[in-house]
Amino acid sequence: MDREELAHYTEVLLSMKEYEGFVWREAFRKKQHLKRLSDKHLKLLPEATKKDNITSHLRCAKQNQVFWDDICEMQKGFGPEVDLPTHVNFKQPLKTHPRHYHKLKSTLHQCVRDWAAEGAEERASCYSPILEELKRALPVNDSNKYKQKVLVPGAGLGRLALEIVAQGYITEGNEFSYQMLFTSNFILNCATEPNAFTLHPWIDNQCNNVSFADFSRPVTIPDVAPSDLLEQDACDGRVFSMCAGEFLEVYGNDIGTWDCVVTCFFIDAAPNVIEYIEAIERMLKPGGVWINLGPLLYHWANGDGDDDERYDQSIELTYEEVKHVAEGLNFTITNEARRECLYTCNKPSMLRSVYQCVQFTAVKGTRLETVPSSPAK
Amino acid sequence: MDREELAHYTEVLLSMKEYEGFVWREAFRKKQHLKRLSDKHLKLLPEATKKDNITSHLRCAKQNQVFWDDICEMQKGFGPEVDLPTHVNFKQPLKTHPRHYHKLKSTLHQCVRDWAAEGAEERASCYSPILEELKRALPVNDSNKYKQKVLVPGAGLGRLALEIVAQGYITEGNEFSYQMLFTSNFILNCATEPNAFTLHPWIDNQCNNVSFADFSRPVTIPDVAPSDLLEQDACDGRVFSMCAGEFLEVYGNDIGTWDCVVTCFFIDAAPNVIEYIEAIERMLKPGGVWINLGPLLYHWANGDGDDDERYDQSIELTYEEVKHVAEGLNFTITNEARRECLYTCNKPSMLRSVYQCVQFTAVKGTRLETVPSSPAK
Repeated sequence: MDREELAHYTEVLLSMKEYEGFVWREAFRKKQHLKRLSDKHLKLLPEATKKDNITSHLRCAKQNQVFWDDICEMQKGFGPEVDLPTHVNFKQPLKTHPRHYHKLKSTLHQCVRDWAAEGAEERASCYSPILEELKRALPVNDSNKYKQKVLVPGAGLGRLALEIVAQGYITEGNEFSYQMLFTSNFILNCATEPNAFTLHPWIDNQCNNVSFADFSRPVTIPDVAPSDLLEQDACDGRVFSMCAGEFLEVYGNDIGTWDCVVTCFFIDAAPNVIEYIEAIERMLKPGGVWINLGPLLYHWANGDGDDDERYDQSIELTYEEVKHVAEGLNFTITNEARRECLYTCNKPSMLRSVYQCVQFTAVKGTRLETVPSSPAK
Repeated sequence: MDREELAHYTEVLLSMKEYEGFVWREAFRKKQHLKRLSDKHLKLLPEATKKDNITSHLRCAKQNQVFWDDICEMQKGFGPEVDLPTHVNFKQPLKTHPRHYHKLKSTLHQCVRDWAAEGAEERASCYSPILEELKRALPVNDSNKYKQKVLVPGAGLGRLALEIVAQGYITEGNEFSYQMLFTSNFILNCATEPNAFTLHPWIDNQCNNVSFADFSRPVTIPDVAPSDLLEQDACDGRVFSMCAGEFLEVYGNDIGTWDCVVTCFFIDAAPNVIEYIEAIERMLKPGGVWINLGPLLYHWANGDGDDDERYDQSIELTYEEVKHVAEGLNFTITNEARRECLYTCNKPSMLRSVYQCVQFTAVKGTRLETVPSSPAK
């Protein structure tokens, strides 16, 4: 790990330690705004709004902090040695940038998506069709069990990858974000029984709450112990692994290595989606399949003043253009479908984003292979 | 109109004249990003992506510009005299702020919501339940036709207000945004037949497009000529009016004036929703009703560096708190329901925001009236 990388690694861990401080600032802002109300308006509010709810908000933050502290503690055993404070006085100025806080919030939401009982419907809408298609395209039998290799880039908290292992494939999840990597590492290794951890994942949801109970409600994870998803012989590193790093960099030398690449809500994370499609084609064995499901919400489309150079590269292809590129790269597109999916949905909220995803399976090299064997006219 | 107001009025009109320039900049950015691709990647893209689609994008912008030009032309006959350029050389630096462009884009989306055939389903999901409830709470008969007074704050492009007039109520729409006011004025006065105008309302939708045709597709408005919605005797200013200005300011002196206030996707536009509820209570006659439908997506919740002071006032009440405040202000809440509604939804897009709205009817003063008549215990 180079110096810059180590600095980033340390900063992410430190931001986890500072989580409670970020929430405390939000609760403080809320309290200040209430204080500015006239006496008449203050009297109209329920008593709980002015007192108990604020205390309860901070109590929820404290419980989430325990989760982050546990993750930091466990991560000591995996990564480089890092000097972290045991306890952060969160009323002092924080050292990490608020963008880390945004990532911690979305990591908590991902915990619900991948590992809570209430995420089951969401998982059924997008993971189940992928698993069905995988079993259709690459059937597992006694002779090929744990032999076909599946890669899941953008694996998040690892649930989809683990469900794929459970079907009998060698599976590797790839993930770039340290927040996701530390958290998936923690869940996969330390969640030895269902409902081992209690989180309050929705306390950043200021708007569209019906009640304070919706806002502060606890969610337990995991719905199932990760090890219980797997057969005994699949619980080793040769069958399932998570790999840290940027997709294009990590697999830059892989040529014809994989039987299948599964992308779920992933390809639109690319500044240049053509690079991703090209890489997937290169990595697959001839006849290998790419299974994709997701929208095209390009992450780098709107810079709004951010100076990350990826905003200056972003090309926002339509689905038809993505398909054209894939076909030009020698993929044959089959089994196209539209799927209505949610993504880190907070069920009781008055607003939800609903994705009308495209799903397809792209088979590598079919065209080239058939050309030599076709009879001359 | 004071000087500051006149400056704002002029700026909004000028931003309409500059609309095409904003789109041109977006198309130019897209073209630049494509140009940066390697030759190999460029060759993988469909021919249309590199040429025809860019031309077509600009042609769509030009057609939208005709709409804005027509609005500016008509507005001359209504507002103060303003010196506007006939034609803007949009490759020169623009004079208005990009935030105006954002408002023009959402005004085009509102044209679909309120006045296009493809908005019919969206209108049915939120306007129809309001109209049903209004007819239930304040029935119209021969003796009170065009006598009961209904106010619609946040009237947008006026469709809901007009549908209310069509049911036999004196109706006033109130709106703060000049973009909305000019556009509703134009549609109500100049759209004398169905499909009079052709717009391309979705060309700002960079992401989640299935095809370029989805992105550039034309939408005609109105689905029905506004005057055809009304009976002959309702086509005068005594029965239907639109009123410009900030809700709290415009109706600050109204006490017991209105039979009904209808708020649809409106109350969360307040920095302090208690002020709105208080004002609605004051404005209603005793026994008058407030019909509300919408989410609680508080507009002023997240400042993110913006220095508008309303971000420093924002209180984000839950629905239960809103209800508590309303009851404390002597409203009796009845007929609560949840309604799934869309808001300026672009149907073919791969992403849609779905609102799980609350609907309720609040009757003014019921409690005070019943207290004196209740027998002493």
